[in-house]
Amino acid sequence: MGEHLPHTRSFHSVSAEHRQTVWDNAIPPALEVESGATVELETADASGGQLTKSSSAEDVTNMDMGAVNPVTGPVYVKDAEAGDTLQVEILELEPNDWGWTAIIPGFGLLADEFPDPWLNISTVEAETKTVRFNDDVTLPFAPFPGTIGVAPEEPGQHSVLPPTKWGGNMDIKHLTAGTTLYLPVAVRGALFSVGDTHAAMGDAEVCGTAVESAMTITVRLTTIKHQTLAHPQYRIPPGQLAEAERSGYHVCTGIDHDLTEAARQATRATIEHIQRTHGIDRQTAYAIASVAVDLRIHELVDAPNWVVGAFLPDSIFARPHA
Amino acid sequence: MGEHLPHTRSFHSVSAEHRQTVWDNAIPPALEVESGATVELETADASGGQLTKSSSAEDVTNMDMGAVNPVTGPVYVKDAEAGDTLQVEILELEPNDWGWTAIIPGFGLLADEFPDPWLNISTVEAETKTVRFNDDVTLPFAPFPGTIGVAPEEPGQHSVLPPTKWGGNMDIKHLTAGTTLYLPVAVRGALFSVGDTHAAMGDAEVCGTAVESAMTITVRLTTIKHQTLAHPQYRIPPGQLAEAERSGYHVCTGIDHDLTEAARQATRATIEHIQRTHGIDRQTAYAIASVAVDLRIHELVDAPNWVVGAFLPDSIFARPHA
Repeated sequence: MGEHLPHTRSFHSVSAEHRQTVWDNAIPPALEVESGATVELETADASGGQLTKSSSAEDVTNMDMGAVNPVTGPVYVKDAEAGDTLQVEILELEPNDWGWTAIIPGFGLLADEFPDPWLNISTVEAETKTVRFNDDVTLPFAPFPGTIGVAPEEPGQHSVLPPTKWGGNMDIKHLTAGTTLYLPVAVRGALFSVGDTHAAMGDAEVCGTAVESAMTITVRLTTIKHQTLAHPQYRIPPGQLAEAERSGYHVCTGIDHDLTEAARQATRATIEHIQRTHGIDRQTAYAIASVAVDLRIHELVDAPNWVVGAFLPDSIFARPHA
Repeated sequence: MGEHLPHTRSFHSVSAEHRQTVWDNAIPPALEVESGATVELETADASGGQLTKSSSAEDVTNMDMGAVNPVTGPVYVKDAEAGDTLQVEILELEPNDWGWTAIIPGFGLLADEFPDPWLNISTVEAETKTVRFNDDVTLPFAPFPGTIGVAPEEPGQHSVLPPTKWGGNMDIKHLTAGTTLYLPVAVRGALFSVGDTHAAMGDAEVCGTAVESAMTITVRLTTIKHQTLAHPQYRIPPGQLAEAERSGYHVCTGIDHDLTEAARQATRATIEHIQRTHGIDRQTAYAIASVAVDLRIHELVDAPNWVVGAFLPDSIFARPHA
């Protein structure tokens, strides 16, 4: 008895009722699992349910910012200890039928230039795997968790807004199904949480929001003993990046001695390009840059000036490039 | 007579004898062409011929840094004026059979951590379109000009090392054949120059050098009247990015309140990953990061911490990932 039995893995789920708006290693686990367990976690959207399909820009202004970006969890992984690595295989994200994108005053890479609240509701079409942003722009449905991490080493409550070496609000658009994330473990049990799911986003998320959409995410959590990481790492399987980047691109550069300013220049130029080429207003163009444009660092060695490129895919536009 | 004649474009060439080691809008043109002309320019390598196939690390130390990064030109485009845009179609880059990659003391993203000179000679195989970096690492031949630009508005001599709004040493790896670059024009005739050709490079060029290789580059130069750009822009045709990014990737992140420090963390982690996973020494791993790893900005809005990812392709290694 017992020999040659298939290696079974338990299946578990955590509902969105177990949501936290801070990182704190004293929060009791919502679930305890063995290493290797598959866990389904239901997430709230980044507004924590404050925005709905019928919300307007005014509702953005009235949001309680203390309730935003909730994470679902934490999940205690039994043999994980400080100094280990938690392997998180992203297995599946189930689409919701809508998502929101906002310009939130005081937030975002060009906050000074966009003082007014703004809101857009996208529809997500599960069958066609597309996100209809508006009549002009349709994005591939490329869902991932914006926030994914483990409890920090430092005791006490910590904001969920900035990412840290323990992960959190990293907003890595490449954490789609098929990617495997490796997180450094700070405390016994790791205390894994996830939230802030996005239906689509550009690398850098320049306006500060993506297509924000509640989802159910399924991950497999496995402890790798005695492997210590300074910061999170991840693996993308062959072909996944190529599949996502088949479009032609218009790339605006920024060139400055300050890398962030170079990113701002590239973003500004992209906004102007979208306005001029596609006849789209300035706020919408900023939001399109946030949900669809990828920022890359071209050079960071030819002192004193650095180059950032903002990659705008042609394929998202209903009408081709002029 | 003259009707229905095909629209012919002149063909011109500029030899590497016409090389400049400064940007200066007073340098007399090596060539004058009409808008729409195709021009073949012979470039020197970034050492200006100081390094050869048989050079050693000692030769890196002895380089005359005043002679490095020469550009070939300038080409005067007859109808270009300040406020116009120069369209540069990258048509072809002919491979040379070798290239060099160096760690130059005092230069590069991790200059403080790599004080010693180091040199690697790659062989470029034209038939297989590959760059044999060493026995462990083979890169796709993906040639582009690291330095490409027009004469600056400001009179006098300007270093060719930093890029500016007029282009120059931008080190944009995506400027391969098929890409079209748009440069703002500062002075009458534009005064286009090109050099610093690379057989392969990663986005960011972290150690400060690519696979540096003299080449002949063919471009088509066309003036776009009355279109003024703040910084260079470029267009990548459909499929080109996907074709270059079919690999699986191991991505190390850096997370910091300083974006450049986040890039350093991601680069350091990548070097350690290459060392540990592939049994490669630290200097070689740094150089591999420079010639093959792409830096992307994952988020630049979740204050106060930003996330940079360093994308290491699996496909360059002779032996698969452990």
